[in-house]
Amino acid sequence: MSSAPLVHSLRVRYAECDPQGVVFNSRYLEYFDVALTELWREALGNYDGVMADLGVDLVVAEARIRYRSSLRFDDVFEMSVAITRLGTTATTIAIDIDRDGELIAEGEMRHVFVTRGTTEKTEIPPSIRESLEPFAT
Amino acid sequence: MSSAPLVHSLRVRYAECDPQGVVFNSRYLEYFDVALTELWREALGNYDGVMADLGVDLVVAEARIRYRSSLRFDDVFEMSVAITRLGTTATTIAIDIDRDGELIAEGEMRHVFVTRGTTEKTEIPPSIRESLEPFAT
Amino acid sequence: MSSAPLVHSLRVRYAECDPQGVVFNSRYLEYFDVALTELWREALGNYDGVMADLGVDLVVAEARIRYRSSLRFDDVFEMSVAITRLGTTATTIAIDIDRDGELIAEGEMRHVFVTRGTTEKTEIPPSIRESLEPFAT
Amino acid sequence: MSSAPLVHSLRVRYAECDPQGVVFNSRYLEYFDVALTELWREALGNYDGVMADLGVDLVVAEARIRYRSSLRFDDVFEMSVAITRLGTTATTIAIDIDRDGELIAEGEMRHVFVTRGTTEKTEIPPSIRESLEPFAT
Repeated sequence: MSSAPLVHSLRVRYAECDPQGVVFNSRYLEYFDVALTELWREALGNYDGVMADLGVDLVVAEARIRYRSSLRFDDVFEMSVAITRLGTTATTIAIDIDRDGELIAEGEMRHVFVTRGTTEKTEIPPSIRESLEPFAT
Repeated sequence: MSSAPLVHSLRVRYAECDPQGVVFNSRYLEYFDVALTELWREALGNYDGVMADLGVDLVVAEARIRYRSSLRFDDVFEMSVAITRLGTTATTIAIDIDRDGELIAEGEMRHVFVTRGTTEKTEIPPSIRESLEPFAT
Repeated sequence: MSSAPLVHSLRVRYAECDPQGVVFNSRYLEYFDVALTELWREALGNYDGVMADLGVDLVVAEARIRYRSSLRFDDVFEMSVAITRLGTTATTIAIDIDRDGELIAEGEMRHVFVTRGTTEKTEIPPSIRESLEPFAT
Repeated sequence: MSSAPLVHSLRVRYAECDPQGVVFNSRYLEYFDVALTELWREALGNYDGVMADLGVDLVVAEARIRYRSSLRFDDVFEMSVAITRLGTTATTIAIDIDRDGELIAEGEMRHVFVTRGTTEKTEIPPSIRESLEPFAT
């Protein structure tokens, strides 16, 4: 994803590393969540307000990570984020993690739009779809 | 605290350990929170319901930890919990962490009762005070 | 997996829950890691010692989680663990999370055996394969 | 600490917040650790290398946090860091957390220098003391 619509950098914290000296596997999902926050910020601005006004919410339906190498304490890495599927009620987002051009991990998160306060899936509101389209590949 | 009113055991998880091979310092506060949950369960039963019915809530005002040794992956340890101060609006709770009789860490948490939904301190309701007294030393 | 070779129970900690009041998505991988620890304990006893003696180590290659419902603070849940693929150099382990018989999440972790201290894959040693076989489905 | 020797900013991650919608109490120690990392980087450059060459290591002996207000998801906050005591074998570091000029929390961490690979305290090496002095108040 050399031309990903959004790139966000982070630095590995000591507390994120395990006794093997590498970032513990669950931490990648915390990183992905930061990447998603930045994607929503870029696409929708005030994400919480927009979603509440439209009476919708997002829930995670699936996560997948392929670990190709590992990150160590103090490493600076880049997350490249793109929406790979913009469905009727769901989105799939791909996140690559790179350090100095080396691919460290590839992830995918599937989210479903639900009616706020319920678990009933609902169509992605047109205004949100429009805001997300520039981030779709 | 050899005769602490409440003792609760846990086993160290791998993800809680850092590259030095020991439990990372912030994790002790997560352990203390588990100890507090067990204290409330023992003292009040349905903690959330009781607090909501009385229109009060608890906020953490201070935490202190003295690290004397360290915990490692898979260690089983004991937390001994006691209320060391049952004030008008606040409580102080002491938690010792031991592994096989060796003192690993000593902690102290101070909580303040507030009117639910606000940050205004309020007196500890008499029924709660009565439930907490058996755990005070 | 009603007859999974290994079942392990945990209780949700407050610190594992997010502002939506449910367990944050990355926490499931922390739970899976606890389940794996119990699987290795049951299969191999002193896991670290056995692996070190044989000059091998395990690295995570892939993780997948399908979220079907959610867990809340203080929920007690069961993890059912089974080895679904015992390959030449890799294992795939499936973990179901249930609460009172309701399926909350399904996960899968793929691990690769490597020569200790390297990232070179190596065959699963025969003695380890034998110990893992009772947990394969 | 309006003129603290080191100031470092962070943004609150969603996963760091609990069901009350605020940053969970243990997370402040994770933030403090990031502040310390930046202090070491500024003072010593290659911290790990310097400490290893001198045959010393640092262990946390005590942590204290006073919570005055709370942080919420996506808040940007500043950590002001200063060495308040540079003893013979130990340091005390104070960290203030502010959001838009409001004091959110005050912390203190005491570290002890030990001979690398042991838990025996040792004097702070002169070259390290010299590097730390500009950060002492």
